[in-house]
Amino acid sequence: MDYGIVVKILGKLLMLESVLMLPSLLIAMQRGTHDIKAFIITILIALILGFSFNRVKSREKSITTKEGLMIVALGWLVLSLVGALPLWISGGVSSYVDAFFESVSGFTTTGTTIIENVEILPDGILFWRSFTHWIGGMGILVFTISILPALGIGGFQIFKAESPGPVAGKIAPKIADTAKILYTIYISITITQVLLLLIGGMNFYDSLVYTFGTVGTGGFATKNASVGHYNSSYIQMVIGFFMMLSGINFSLYYMLFKGKWREAVKDEEMKLYLIIIGAAVLGIMINLLMTSYNSIGHAFKDSFFQVNSIMTTTGYSTTDFNLWPTFSKSILFVLMLIGGSAGSTAGGTKVIRLLVNLKLVKREILQMFHPRAVKPVKINGKIMSQEAIEGINAFTVLYMMIFLISTIFISLENVDMITAISSVAATLGNIGPGFGLVGPASTFAAYSPIAKIWFSILMLLGRLELFTIIALIVPTKWSRIN
Amino acid sequence: MDYGIVVKILGKLLMLESVLMLPSLLIAMQRGTHDIKAFIITILIALILGFSFNRVKSREKSITTKEGLMIVALGWLVLSLVGALPLWISGGVSSYVDAFFESVSGFTTTGTTIIENVEILPDGILFWRSFTHWIGGMGILVFTISILPALGIGGFQIFKAESPGPVAGKIAPKIADTAKILYTIYISITITQVLLLLIGGMNFYDSLVYTFGTVGTGGFATKNASVGHYNSSYIQMVIGFFMMLSGINFSLYYMLFKGKWREAVKDEEMKLYLIIIGAAVLGIMINLLMTSYNSIGHAFKDSFFQVNSIMTTTGYSTTDFNLWPTFSKSILFVLMLIGGSAGSTAGGTKVIRLLVNLKLVKREILQMFHPRAVKPVKINGKIMSQEAIEGINAFTVLYMMIFLISTIFISLENVDMITAISSVAATLGNIGPGFGLVGPASTFAAYSPIAKIWFSILMLLGRLELFTIIALIVPTKWSRIN
Repeated sequence: MDYGIVVKILGKLLMLESVLMLPSLLIAMQRGTHDIKAFIITILIALILGFSFNRVKSREKSITTKEGLMIVALGWLVLSLVGALPLWISGGVSSYVDAFFESVSGFTTTGTTIIENVEILPDGILFWRSFTHWIGGMGILVFTISILPALGIGGFQIFKAESPGPVAGKIAPKIADTAKILYTIYISITITQVLLLLIGGMNFYDSLVYTFGTVGTGGFATKNASVGHYNSSYIQMVIGFFMMLSGINFSLYYMLFKGKWREAVKDEEMKLYLIIIGAAVLGIMINLLMTSYNSIGHAFKDSFFQVNSIMTTTGYSTTDFNLWPTFSKSILFVLMLIGGSAGSTAGGTKVIRLLVNLKLVKREILQMFHPRAVKPVKINGKIMSQEAIEGINAFTVLYMMIFLISTIFISLENVDMITAISSVAATLGNIGPGFGLVGPASTFAAYSPIAKIWFSILMLLGRLELFTIIALIVPTKWSRIN
Repeated sequence: MDYGIVVKILGKLLMLESVLMLPSLLIAMQRGTHDIKAFIITILIALILGFSFNRVKSREKSITTKEGLMIVALGWLVLSLVGALPLWISGGVSSYVDAFFESVSGFTTTGTTIIENVEILPDGILFWRSFTHWIGGMGILVFTISILPALGIGGFQIFKAESPGPVAGKIAPKIADTAKILYTIYISITITQVLLLLIGGMNFYDSLVYTFGTVGTGGFATKNASVGHYNSSYIQMVIGFFMMLSGINFSLYYMLFKGKWREAVKDEEMKLYLIIIGAAVLGIMINLLMTSYNSIGHAFKDSFFQVNSIMTTTGYSTTDFNLWPTFSKSILFVLMLIGGSAGSTAGGTKVIRLLVNLKLVKREILQMFHPRAVKPVKINGKIMSQEAIEGINAFTVLYMMIFLISTIFISLENVDMITAISSVAATLGNIGPGFGLVGPASTFAAYSPIAKIWFSILMLLGRLELFTIIALIVPTKWSRIN
């Protein structure tokens, strides 16, 4: 274990973060608000820490699995720790724990907030808050599409394809090339959405902020009423549609770009993703029309937005779905557990795992009648390896266990059961709002500092596919190479 | 597919049921209550149907997998359909659907009820209701310890041991011998508990009824306050302790009986089962003492009883745990999902599956660091086959899916989310009470007939390890032998 290389790379990340904080500082300076000082202090701290870390000597140039996992997990943590400073120093929140929670929520693209009135915060702070979604989203694309498949953890072996296929992982042979392609796609989608929002009459600042929250599937808003603040159906539909796009595996966009649209359109995960969204939108729409809504258009608009927001784990809202009938809420609850596609910015357990699990159940039923005919499980025509299947099974089980144990722990806060369950679902799945006391119209502010730290850990666990974080805390003897 | 043999065996089951109804008829006659007629009519119907079914000709003598599964699934269904008649004919419930729900709840040893005031029902009916738990418990022992391992479904391959080992399946070489041994153990435990309850001052009738509900891990009571009706700590502790005993794999009792107590005591599933019970009892006890309870003894007694009742999926109660703080309720909720040991009369997903899942997660973490060292998963020192692991994974996933889809469906009843979620958990896990509107102090009476039928299906699905029921409804082409 070479800690030198780990610290060195963390140093580089901190220097990068200080640069990424410049736009927020510029906005603060342009607005002349009191958060200028907070950004300057933070940028200096990040630079000083970054330079010092970067000077640490490393023994080797190559990175082992354990070091790689440590860099990813500590990277997200360190970015969050420093990223929390502007909010805290500027006095936007009263404690550092609150600022840390908010910062983790940003970088993990969760969007859960403890700020009850965001509208009183200065624009620079709000810009930084949403920009962390965008940074986190980009980071997670590189992590899930090029780093995890290379390590082969938690079922991500499925993306370890030799050549770009329908569920291709390594789009380009080298991680750096893959990253460059992903950045290009990510930035193109971002620019398109900003333009469409500008056309809809949103101002440039808001267009940027809401686009960051959409393409990063984050969900931080600059208004207390979230996207519901904008009465324009056009704006709501644009954001709803781009949330849906952001929950699709980004490899498919590359394939489209390369003219391989036939393969892209046939992708099994995307098909299941769209089927689930379609069924959920329809089910909720009918349920709303049979209860409180009178207009089909209105019911569709609200159903479409909320379903895409929850399925992609974004967390924006145009209405308080906590007030919807139980049937609609239960559908949203199940969507919370599924999440978006692998290789997108969305969280949750991912549609690909649901797809594989469905195929495994079907195979088990078939084997009851044909015990000797062991059929391999195929995704997009490719046989899945035994290791990938085991990885997916282990992930599914571990996710449930962390979910249930956390629910018991959070219940100590003396909230009702549905608040406890959905708070855990909302943070572990990187969604944002839940039900009960943590619905779209409320925040996580009332939780104790210990609970907020626990939720921060859950957000990191969920975002980094569980095993990345687990790897850091397992007994040393497990990781010792014999 | 030879339907003849299926119908023939169902006929034999119906004749057996008519005989098993005689004690209830005798009690009704002795008490001189109005349910005498209901029992006589039902016994005649069962006999006539039984004789007719038994006369159907079968082509072959041997039974295929599909036929075996069909006999088990339809067997439980037919017993429930006919077993519902006394309650309906005697006017104990207003509709046949209600009577069917209650009967399924009995035979599946669930104990969920739709009867709001059981104390006005005649003794014969109440005796029959509890006796169905005892019959169902015995049936499930034979099913899970000797039939399922032979078929190798849903992970039950683990019990397919050559010789009686710690997790031995085929205790004796032949199913009939195994059944005889299991009956002897089951009846011995029953007699012991009845004697202990008699010593505690309970009358003979009540001792029988509560013992049926305990050893079958059912939970039907003759008092509206369940076991809470009996103020005696002795009685509550005896029932609590025997619930715990009934949630242990019955193979272990055979091993004890054979003097192999060393092997029995080392059983990994039993150890985990007792650790979970111990941790839950302690956690809830402390939580109760920190909130509403003043005496350690009282807190221990209530915690011990409720934990064992829920963990073993019995469903008796000595207090309304729905009024407990959320922490205690969340612990009970997690216990609902786990359930008792495989090869016991308890329901749920079973401790053995949790144990295997825990080992699979540990193996996945190890493999992150040692990708080439594939270690087999061992239970009690024996290597688990790949098929058994796949069976357990498929079961876990299918259980969750049925759970979530049912929750959405039940939400149409417009109950709150926690009521919907726990109603499904309570029926699919064969437990009995849930939380919210279906807590220990209330019933499932308010649900619509369609929901009651759905719950009945869930009880059968849970009781017969999902795949038995699924096998009946899969497309024919899946089961066709090519």
